[in-house]
Amino acid sequence: MDELRKLPGIGARSAERIAFHLLKTGREEALALATAVSDIKDKVQPCSRCFNLAEGPLCHICADPRRDAGQVFVVEQPKDLLSLESTGLIGGVYHVLMGHIAPLEGVGPDDLTIAALVQRVRGGGVREVVLATNPTVEGDATALHVSSVLAGTGVAITRLARGLAPGSHIEYASRAMLEEALRGRREV
Amino acid sequence: MDELRKLPGIGARSAERIAFHLLKTGREEALALATAVSDIKDKVQPCSRCFNLAEGPLCHICADPRRDAGQVFVVEQPKDLLSLESTGLIGGVYHVLMGHIAPLEGVGPDDLTIAALVQRVRGGGVREVVLATNPTVEGDATALHVSSVLAGTGVAITRLARGLAPGSHIEYASRAMLEEALRGRREV
Repeated sequence: MDELRKLPGIGARSAERIAFHLLKTGREEALALATAVSDIKDKVQPCSRCFNLAEGPLCHICADPRRDAGQVFVVEQPKDLLSLESTGLIGGVYHVLMGHIAPLEGVGPDDLTIAALVQRVRGGGVREVVLATNPTVEGDATALHVSSVLAGTGVAITRLARGLAPGSHIEYASRAMLEEALRGRREV
Repeated sequence: MDELRKLPGIGARSAERIAFHLLKTGREEALALATAVSDIKDKVQPCSRCFNLAEGPLCHICADPRRDAGQVFVVEQPKDLLSLESTGLIGGVYHVLMGHIAPLEGVGPDDLTIAALVQRVRGGGVREVVLATNPTVEGDATALHVSSVLAGTGVAITRLARGLAPGSHIEYASRAMLEEALRGRREV
């Protein structure tokens, strides 16, 4: 119970519930969990190409020949990759920066995988880099930096659209959202 | 107190508090409120050009010569107009549809001020119509209808941008938001 309580979002009551569940459950099930937990440290490592979580030298996306390696979505974290993947709309591949530029937290461009991205783009075969960092101050600063270091490579650099969130209401929209919506308006 | 309680968001306790406040307050202040409440029915009417709330034949925006009458923002309700105005970014004028198309609620195109908008655009002087309906099913249906009836007029028809809400996180974004963000991505 003490070890379970160290996990995020697991309090004393949840730890107790899980511990009793493990007591009741079959031996195989409990061992499967134990193996998975120990494997996470032994087997999971960053993909050598995109820095996504991988169980081999390449992640399952980079290893998939059906993915379009010419279109690279640049995200901050593996979690963002999962979120984009869940839409089922991405035919391209990713590059995980492993964070964002945040000078106050001591995170500079060299702490991210930006140099590896530049090398990857220079290596050829990349047609478009889609900046898919978060629409936050840090995400924007990171996107700006990435686009500036890729400026000379001749690759197309795009950014995810900003604006009104689907299902939201103009009446309650923030000034920032309305600003993006007005600035980015398009011909119908 | 009984009359105050009929107002939205005012319960028994609030009604009591307001009633005692009015008892304590000066006679002028109480009469100013009474006059404002009675004026709302006598003096406030739809603007004859844009259907915004107005105290004269034209609302304060249509009557302002510094506003660019060539750019018309089409909104569902006067509340949406207030929200856009509060950004301080709008130099143009408005057209308030007074609702949205909602067949299930029995609201069709003829129940809105669409015919007046078409007449206004046909009258000349309008360069761009910006569809600023809500990013909802009803708002989209309404925008689609408005853009189709304006199709032959030769005026530019634009729509507010959709996509990631500023300050949001890709990790927690809805599928619909990510879809708009991916579809609407732009060159940096």
